Amino acid sequence: MESGKGLKIVVIGAVACGPKTASRLKRLMPEAEITVLERGEHVSFGACGIPYYVEGLFNNLSALVETPVGVPRTPVFFEKVKGVKVLTKTEAIKIDRESKTVVVRDLRSGEEYSLPYDKLVLATGATAVRPPIPGIDKRNVFFVRNLDDAQNIRNLIDQGKAKNVVIVGGGYIGIEMAEAFAEVGLNVSIVEMLDQIFPQFLDRELALLVQKFMKSKGVSIFTSETVKEILGGESVEAVKTDKRELPADLVIVAVGVRPNDILAKEAGLACGPKGGILVNSYCQTSDPDIYAGGDCVLNFYVHPITGQPLFIPLGSTANKHGRVIANHIAGIASPFPGIACTSVCKVFEVTVARTGLSEAMAKSLNIDVVSAVWTGPDKPHYMEGKPLTIKLIASRKYRTILGAEVVGMGDAAKRIDVAAMAVQFKATLDQLAYVDLAYAPPFSPPIDPIATAAHVLLNKMNGLANGLNPLEAKKWMDERKDLVLLDVRTPDEFNQMRLPDDRVVHIPLGALREKVNELPKDKDILAFCKVSMRGYEAQRILNAAGFDRVWFIEGGLVGWPFEVWTA
Amino acid sequence: MESGKGLKIVVIGAVACGPKTASRLKRLMPEAEITVLERGEHVSFGACGIPYYVEGLFNNLSALVETPVGVPRTPVFFEKVKGVKVLTKTEAIKIDRESKTVVVRDLRSGEEYSLPYDKLVLATGATAVRPPIPGIDKRNVFFVRNLDDAQNIRNLIDQGKAKNVVIVGGGYIGIEMAEAFAEVGLNVSIVEMLDQIFPQFLDRELALLVQKFMKSKGVSIFTSETVKEILGGESVEAVKTDKRELPADLVIVAVGVRPNDILAKEAGLACGPKGGILVNSYCQTSDPDIYAGGDCVLNFYVHPITGQPLFIPLGSTANKHGRVIANHIAGIASPFPGIACTSVCKVFEVTVARTGLSEAMAKSLNIDVVSAVWTGPDKPHYMEGKPLTIKLIASRKYRTILGAEVVGMGDAAKRIDVAAMAVQFKATLDQLAYVDLAYAPPFSPPIDPIATAAHVLLNKMNGLANGLNPLEAKKWMDERKDLVLLDVRTPDEFNQMRLPDDRVVHIPLGALREKVNELPKDKDILAFCKVSMRGYEAQRILNAAGFDRVWFIEGGLVGWPFEVWTA
Repeated sequence: MESGKGLKIVVIGAVACGPKTASRLKRLMPEAEITVLERGEHVSFGACGIPYYVEGLFNNLSALVETPVGVPRTPVFFEKVKGVKVLTKTEAIKIDRESKTVVVRDLRSGEEYSLPYDKLVLATGATAVRPPIPGIDKRNVFFVRNLDDAQNIRNLIDQGKAKNVVIVGGGYIGIEMAEAFAEVGLNVSIVEMLDQIFPQFLDRELALLVQKFMKSKGVSIFTSETVKEILGGESVEAVKTDKRELPADLVIVAVGVRPNDILAKEAGLACGPKGGILVNSYCQTSDPDIYAGGDCVLNFYVHPITGQPLFIPLGSTANKHGRVIANHIAGIASPFPGIACTSVCKVFEVTVARTGLSEAMAKSLNIDVVSAVWTGPDKPHYMEGKPLTIKLIASRKYRTILGAEVVGMGDAAKRIDVAAMAVQFKATLDQLAYVDLAYAPPFSPPIDPIATAAHVLLNKMNGLANGLNPLEAKKWMDERKDLVLLDVRTPDEFNQMRLPDDRVVHIPLGALREKVNELPKDKDILAFCKVSMRGYEAQRILNAAGFDRVWFIEGGLVGWPFEVWTA
Repeated sequence: MESGKGLKIVVIGAVACGPKTASRLKRLMPEAEITVLERGEHVSFGACGIPYYVEGLFNNLSALVETPVGVPRTPVFFEKVKGVKVLTKTEAIKIDRESKTVVVRDLRSGEEYSLPYDKLVLATGATAVRPPIPGIDKRNVFFVRNLDDAQNIRNLIDQGKAKNVVIVGGGYIGIEMAEAFAEVGLNVSIVEMLDQIFPQFLDRELALLVQKFMKSKGVSIFTSETVKEILGGESVEAVKTDKRELPADLVIVAVGVRPNDILAKEAGLACGPKGGILVNSYCQTSDPDIYAGGDCVLNFYVHPITGQPLFIPLGSTANKHGRVIANHIAGIASPFPGIACTSVCKVFEVTVARTGLSEAMAKSLNIDVVSAVWTGPDKPHYMEGKPLTIKLIASRKYRTILGAEVVGMGDAAKRIDVAAMAVQFKATLDQLAYVDLAYAPPFSPPIDPIATAAHVLLNKMNGLANGLNPLEAKKWMDERKDLVLLDVRTPDEFNQMRLPDDRVVHIPLGALREKVNELPKDKDILAFCKVSMRGYEAQRILNAAGFDRVWFIEGGLVGWPFEVWTA
């Protein structure tokens, strides 16, 4: 590796990818001159932590701009510790590729000047989409992109000035903020234009399960509903949708972000048709002396399935890009392999996580998919295992795992990371089913839930398990009059909670072999239990007794995203 | 699939693999006649839960023989729900392969009779090794293999009859029991013959870190020490080792288990030289009509590296075997891929987990290994991330991950499962470093610790990071007089805790660039900090200033397995 003597590096943007690139590169090439430009005031801040600050999980906002031992990551810190020059309140306004210079403006003095570069790094991030809603400029409408927003929101809460919050957008940021506000006791409503929350991330049955849970925590969710106007005087007072008016003294708009690619576009660098800088696997733009990483670029999916670059901005990806860029400038080839669209979100006590392709995404790509929904505990019952609902999505033909979604109070994050590995290493269902994961009662059942889900899907593909997705089951229940809903739980369980449907027949599993004759062979039978292990067992018992119109409802009552009756 | 009409299946053993085989097979072949023989009284019990019952994490021992909804797994349950006949207190005493029968004895009546089989399944489990120690038969010496042991131990505790416990053996069961006893307030000592706890599972530096932690919880650990005699009258009163006498009113002997392979051996089936039934990947023994699974068999390692079958009995493997056997009998090919030696253990608030080959195992196989130890938080500091120490072991030549060990208060189980996937799917370090795992502040830092550990090892292989394993560092400190221990933490940190060594020089990282001239270029410098991110940064800063004898201590003070001074 060369020392970098005389090499001039300019990095535009100092939140995640920018500082990572600069710090790593200085370690690799100690004599390189590295200058980082930042339009804002803060350097290297943990924007992802904002919802948890608002929720009050920590009270010192400056923790987001400090190192783990409490040293503020200021320009002085970067100079002293990292050997990198950081200019805050300094905006890059033009790239001159011919002369290899960046024109910058000092936002304090207004002065403009040029900085020469040998290599330029664009880490310009993304900006919240600002939908053209009348009234969106009113006071107390926030986009939650920076520390000032965080501070102002928290002040409103602490001063008791926020009671009713409306959140526009049911994606990750909207949901994280909804949790934060609900946890501090505010009335929270979410308005989502599409017909479910997490529209790009979760298949519908799992999204509905999360919605059901959020409603039980007091959050109102209005899907398939559009915000028409934000009402009020100087400050917001209400949000008007196409269906209702919601009182609001605080509004969060989180309908997505757009890559900051204007500098790149103006410099003639290749960008995607919907925005986002195009880069190769070394994060080089169409000009090999200009790199780009983080929220301003498009990424490729790890499998060559989707064909098109994706815009999925994430702090984890931004950090990886920073390393890839620094390595490549220093002569180390460490290609970025792409993203698997892995993500996770805490929603009160529930974790929502996903990786790879959803069933909806796979179908839109014309992939012949199979899927199964499984619900069960994440640990043995005697260790108070908590439920997880897992949806596993695979290719029918190649049996490879295409994606997974996990929702529940149990440890979903662990299972999604295992599934993410399966997706990225192109595991088959057969391989995932027998994988050797760490077992001990405080951590998992003997067969890990993610492997059990693979077994269920294999059973389904083998024709053994007649699983019916909860959405399909609901459709059958709504459309077909003449069916039997066979509840095979214990009498105690039946007395506590049940499906509110008068077609329910209750026969505990232990009595089923003796009572098969009480059931009709000429009707569709949908068996179920708490999680549907017993539902599946019931299906096999009935099959063995000559019944051939038997299904079980995948996920059982715990995974049932619709209404149930409880005592 | 055939219905199994007329097919007679006999299964010997009803703890884990046996009931799993029987239940699955009955679902696959509903007309097969399946008989399960069990020498003991209990069927399908969760033996792994015993330490947690002793600890009082649950108080109803029968939970270990019940389904998750509280239905006892009795012979009646198996008959009614599973359609399987279970004979308890019934011992198989001989296999006649010629006539395809098993001779059994009813332990209640003493009666002997023959059972014919078409397919026979051996799930005979393993028995605790009973070392030839004088006095080992005394009352209150336990081997912790069945529910009676659990009940008797718990009774002694509840009646206040146990104060001093000695545990012979520092493997998983010994450590789990030590935690249980310490948590209920007893004095606990562990005596381990070898020079560390977890001798077959953890490399020495991580084992010492766990020992240091266990000592801080009041557990005494005596390694390299042999038990010579168990003293007392009818009941145990003390344990005599080659170095001391330890008072004891309760002794746990957990020095390993031995596969129950006698029936198989007497029937002429192939077994390993040290015991354990040999099976192919369908769990068939050398007689294709006889299958074996669970703790009585030897398994192959997932990579064709170790060459020899391994005896690693685990409940998770036993369950997988059951499925493989049932599938194969029913005509479904689902080969068992082998084991990766993945395991996990809770030790108070710390999790200890491992997968693949340890460095010691890899070296004993003459593999050219590289390794790195990394310590850091499992979440961002503002979310109160807890520390993890990760050791990653890879092949120098192929860069594939060979194994990983994780110890700490943070979520080690998740990271080991990701590492287990990496081992089983033959991931390279480069792949693991950029893997797309689920990031959000409540779950992980932007770059997951397991990926960071891969980066550190890559940096080490690239010659960038001069990491020194803690054991090496200690050796240098003990053997070389003339070295500098460079502590680059903040003054606050330095005042709270430090290395007890007068060669320590304290220069906070932020001041290092200005003070490089205070350090000697002709001495070895070992830089370190809390976790050694800053230690590594210090090494690079000194390298850039012309120092070429600089190392950093991997894992820093949090991962340091030896004594430190605290205020």
